[in-house]
Amino acid sequence: MSGNTASSKNQQLREMISGPDLNFLMESHNALSAKIAEQAGFSGLWASGLTISAALGLSDRNEASWTQVLDVVEFMTDHVNIPVLLDGDTGFGNYHNVIRLVKKLSQKHVSGVCLEDKIFPKMNSFLGESQKLADIDDFCSKIKAAKDTQLDDDFTVIARTEALISGLGMSEALKRAEHYRQAGADAILIHSKSDNADEILTFSAEWACRGPLVIVPTKYYSTPTEIFQQARISTIIWANHSLRSSIVAMRETTRHIFENQSISHIEQDIATLEDVFALTNEVNANLADKLYKAG
Amino acid sequence: MSGNTASSKNQQLREMISGPDLNFLMESHNALSAKIAEQAGFSGLWASGLTISAALGLSDRNEASWTQVLDVVEFMTDHVNIPVLLDGDTGFGNYHNVIRLVKKLSQKHVSGVCLEDKIFPKMNSFLGESQKLADIDDFCSKIKAAKDTQLDDDFTVIARTEALISGLGMSEALKRAEHYRQAGADAILIHSKSDNADEILTFSAEWACRGPLVIVPTKYYSTPTEIFQQARISTIIWANHSLRSSIVAMRETTRHIFENQSISHIEQDIATLEDVFALTNEVNANLADKLYKAG
Amino acid sequence: MSGNTASSKNQQLREMISGPDLNFLMESHNALSAKIAEQAGFSGLWASGLTISAALGLSDRNEASWTQVLDVVEFMTDHVNIPVLLDGDTGFGNYHNVIRLVKKLSQKHVSGVCLEDKIFPKMNSFLGESQKLADIDDFCSKIKAAKDTQLDDDFTVIARTEALISGLGMSEALKRAEHYRQAGADAILIHSKSDNADEILTFSAEWACRGPLVIVPTKYYSTPTEIFQQARISTIIWANHSLRSSIVAMRETTRHIFENQSISHIEQDIATLEDVFALTNEVNANLADKLYKAG
Amino acid sequence: MSGNTASSKNQQLREMISGPDLNFLMESHNALSAKIAEQAGFSGLWASGLTISAALGLSDRNEASWTQVLDVVEFMTDHVNIPVLLDGDTGFGNYHNVIRLVKKLSQKHVSGVCLEDKIFPKMNSFLGESQKLADIDDFCSKIKAAKDTQLDDDFTVIARTEALISGLGMSEALKRAEHYRQAGADAILIHSKSDNADEILTFSAEWACRGPLVIVPTKYYSTPTEIFQQARISTIIWANHSLRSSIVAMRETTRHIFENQSISHIEQDIATLEDVFALTNEVNANLADKLYKAG
Repeated sequence: MSGNTASSKNQQLREMISGPDLNFLMESHNALSAKIAEQAGFSGLWASGLTISAALGLSDRNEASWTQVLDVVEFMTDHVNIPVLLDGDTGFGNYHNVIRLVKKLSQKHVSGVCLEDKIFPKMNSFLGESQKLADIDDFCSKIKAAKDTQLDDDFTVIARTEALISGLGMSEALKRAEHYRQAGADAILIHSKSDNADEILTFSAEWACRGPLVIVPTKYYSTPTEIFQQARISTIIWANHSLRSSIVAMRETTRHIFENQSISHIEQDIATLEDVFALTNEVNANLADKLYKAG
Repeated sequence: MSGNTASSKNQQLREMISGPDLNFLMESHNALSAKIAEQAGFSGLWASGLTISAALGLSDRNEASWTQVLDVVEFMTDHVNIPVLLDGDTGFGNYHNVIRLVKKLSQKHVSGVCLEDKIFPKMNSFLGESQKLADIDDFCSKIKAAKDTQLDDDFTVIARTEALISGLGMSEALKRAEHYRQAGADAILIHSKSDNADEILTFSAEWACRGPLVIVPTKYYSTPTEIFQQARISTIIWANHSLRSSIVAMRETTRHIFENQSISHIEQDIATLEDVFALTNEVNANLADKLYKAG
Repeated sequence: MSGNTASSKNQQLREMISGPDLNFLMESHNALSAKIAEQAGFSGLWASGLTISAALGLSDRNEASWTQVLDVVEFMTDHVNIPVLLDGDTGFGNYHNVIRLVKKLSQKHVSGVCLEDKIFPKMNSFLGESQKLADIDDFCSKIKAAKDTQLDDDFTVIARTEALISGLGMSEALKRAEHYRQAGADAILIHSKSDNADEILTFSAEWACRGPLVIVPTKYYSTPTEIFQQARISTIIWANHSLRSSIVAMRETTRHIFENQSISHIEQDIATLEDVFALTNEVNANLADKLYKAG
Repeated sequence: MSGNTASSKNQQLREMISGPDLNFLMESHNALSAKIAEQAGFSGLWASGLTISAALGLSDRNEASWTQVLDVVEFMTDHVNIPVLLDGDTGFGNYHNVIRLVKKLSQKHVSGVCLEDKIFPKMNSFLGESQKLADIDDFCSKIKAAKDTQLDDDFTVIARTEALISGLGMSEALKRAEHYRQAGADAILIHSKSDNADEILTFSAEWACRGPLVIVPTKYYSTPTEIFQQARISTIIWANHSLRSSIVAMRETTRHIFENQSISHIEQDIATLEDVFALTNEVNANLADKLYKAG
């Protein structure tokens, strides 16, 4: 199904995160949206905890078990040739849970995981106020455990600090980031819910390239990308936009069909059935028929 | 999560299928699309084998195991108050597999299943030519087993014949439908891949209201719905349109973001984060916080 | 597969726990051991976190996700006509996780759940020293959420306190038990790792029948059962003995076969194949063949 | 958890099957029985379809979905350092299903699969009479597809013929075996339900070492192993004896406890709790505590 090996995907993600150029990861919440992002040209995917949960109808509060999340991600990695970075929330428990998580991610050809310094069960960063953060040593244990467990040298572990989101301030954010770096994190994801990029730019300036920085500009979306390039950000995650676009379309189409009791005026605006098939493993199944169909 | 009991959902589907009015089932492929269809006003859902598979990146050839399909459907029934009819393909084997399937569907609050007279593993009806059909007695065994196994009297079992699709002709279609009706099917789904409704209308006329008829006008989409009303069709399934609309939207948005390396011009065209949360169980989680949050 | 409905199983467990007589629950770790316990005469089962984990090769520290545990338990409830009480550890998170757990348990025909006042991820009670306990209010939130969520009035929620195990003393144990009772727990499981029953008997005397008491005499196994009867204990859980007996047998048989490179002297000491079939759903599959086999 | 890589396990199984010496695979039905067999000294395991199903309470007729079987096997491979050969029944469908199966087996570190020439859904070989066999070309397609799909050169695909079991005679068995060998099977499993080894010995003589032969002497258990050695059998599978021994033990212990309402006379005859812990991943969890526990 994929011509790219797990190991080369891991290497590709590592180079994106660690290289000198600005890179982009596109949100995916299932295998289909992953394939669409790959076909659009993206060279890496963000398996978002929020949008995977939302597609399952669940809140972004660890209502889905970690194995239910991995079931979704496994379908994604099966279906694309580009690396997938999993939004691993808090690691779903303590370092014991992280160990098991990372072992399973390697088997499922996931190329990296991002762990955040909140408490299990977490709540979405854009909900509530002043969520409590993990003890620094406890969180560093998870980072160390993740790095020690990875089967492939190129597996990526990103430490995400919510210090700014939780209102703990810039110096706490920098302190935590440095601890996480020393614990072995391959990059720091510095998260912000400000509607402008000031916090991010200040952090980046103070950080002074001690390691790759990853950002998620969901709330400060209007900041021009060149600004982040100049700030020497490594990677930007477009964290939920594929799902959010699909909601509008499904809602409009569904309402139209409901109100008109008909699909006759819809056909030309939606993907054809051939298009659906072409986005699935039908492509390979068809090749298999040519090879193996008896008679 | 749902105020409607499993039993009342079953009754609702049964009344839709058996009642005198024309009804509509909207395709859903996950819990999110199910919720959107419910909010649009639909009173029942079609859990499509094709679109569930496609969302998983798989061909519509039973590449997903039956329990993987049920995992998806369980998230759907958890999340909506309207009944779900599962596209059960061939029943995923013989009557032993059907028995287990129906038992599990009842537990998962699925209100009905549609079984088709193809051979496991099936292929999508719109692919290939002249797919072989099941022996009539073998298929009737599945219908009987399903009806004997259902825990609730109002669970619905629909028999779908592919006789027209497979080129076996009208009299074979009618013969099969009658056998399936006598075996206990609550309705017949007569499928056609013609681009007009002639086959369906002929079938319906010959069938002469011996039992409810269900149709899937994916290929003959331009036929006005009144025609089906006059032909005394019971239920129309809009079988894949929610997924097909989402593909266009995800593709456009993803390409736009890729090309512009920015989300700044996207924000106003996609659902807000609040909208995403409101479509998930976050609604109930928030209520639970009010009830149970200590301090 | 089961002639007993989910609802009547729930009632049966409730009566066992709440009635005047001493009752016994037998450990099971999979569907096969559940069937064996049912055939031995037991009227209820304990789905043990320790032994389910051990059968999966995992530590008793929530290495298995809660949905993996439920997958095991679902096979158990499918296969027996007697009620199953699940060892629900800490509820696998906070009250949000408990809500989802209890909803799923009802669907899977599990008749009750026991929640313990440790912190997720937990560690086995007989390992480590002085494990930290949950805040009382936080734990009471879980009990309340569980009771509010149950779909059937007869679903049983048992609160287990580890206060004695953690060395917090008798008065803390009694205080916690009273809080949990007031929060709605249907019974209290008072756990002890002492090698005699003194703690349990003191607790029971002080408790003075304010509600049913459940015990797990794994460590104080030599205490005669009449003593517990006199102390008006409601229910005794034999918590891990089926698994522990299977280990000895599998080890001896496997070693014998390895050393002798032969099974010729084993046949008469192990269950026959017919016996294996009779312990599985083959019994019902055979009946289904008689009903549905064509020709 | 395992010091042995997936690739070296594959190589180990391949050498066992292909090498000049007689080798033995021990049945396992879960991670615990797998660990016990490894500790007994076995260098490879047979993940039996019959005993995995039986532990789940299911008949050996593909009532468990293929992904439910793989969930069990994944816990096994996680827990042992020796290779696991999966009893893959018919491949759970046609070559499309085999392709997906083999891809998943590689990810889950299963070292080989045995496919049998019956029809899905299968029935246990020791039940019923004259089960219908697959068309030879159809079955060869599965073998070819499996070999083309394997990610590691040392993955083993074994073709099992049921020709003797189904009463089709020796020449049909030999014909099928030869076809399967030419289709790429790494070994032939020749199955027999005779109570003596005559059929097997005749087959082996006629086969004349065209490739490795695997046998399952469940019914002809009394034949001395030297006979098979002389007949140049490659590998003997002890196919269900661990489970069968556990049944006797669980039954006796459970009955004793039920009748005596006490565990006081059981303790010395069953494995200790420490023993249980030592057979699980608690061993590694304990090491992780030493490495990562803060403070």
